[in-house]
Amino acid sequence: MLIVQVHVRVQPEFVEAFKEATAENARNSVKEPGIARFDVLQQQDDPTRFVLVEVYRNIDAQASHRETVHYRTWRDRAESLMAEPRTRVIYHAVFPADEGW
Amino acid sequence: MLIVQVHVRVQPEFVEAFKEATAENARNSVKEPGIARFDVLQQQDDPTRFVLVEVYRNIDAQASHRETVHYRTWRDRAESLMAEPRTRVIYHAVFPADEGW
Repeated sequence: MLIVQVHVRVQPEFVEAFKEATAENARNSVKEPGIARFDVLQQQDDPTRFVLVEVYRNIDAQASHRETVHYRTWRDRAESLMAEPRTRVIYHAVFPADEGW
Repeated sequence: MLIVQVHVRVQPEFVEAFKEATAENARNSVKEPGIARFDVLQQQDDPTRFVLVEVYRNIDAQASHRETVHYRTWRDRAESLMAEPRTRVIYHAVFPADEGW
């Protein structure tokens, strides 16, 4: 599993718009065969901050995701709502094993 | 859902020991009824950095977790392996809904 955490800070007036656009992207992304999870988290003490936790079954799945209409729609919309460029950190899983995702 | 991400940096010589101790804690933690997930992630470009993604069904579940023997055993062991105090960020879920965890 290849796990990507994307950190986003949104302009305060666009928090709800970002949540809507990102939940829509997540709903479509979890239908991709190469995506095990696509969680969207909002920080409790700063609601303008989000983490997307994207769990890909392999590196090809990440490339495929970037070709989808839902990803591209999200990217264009979300970038217009952000307060600064998003950052990402890549992880691999120590726990659980592949079947636990 | 209450999601806690715990960020840990481990002393380089203790990376494997930390992985073992933390996977053991995770295996026991996911058996707690109030814990939906307990993922352990290792950063790809810096293997001394980890994130624990702890998904609690409610705040009481987090309090219960801290009373368990496996948590306390992990805490004492893990603290001796860290390069610096761990930090945590608390989130709530935008996606998926409760039943998706």
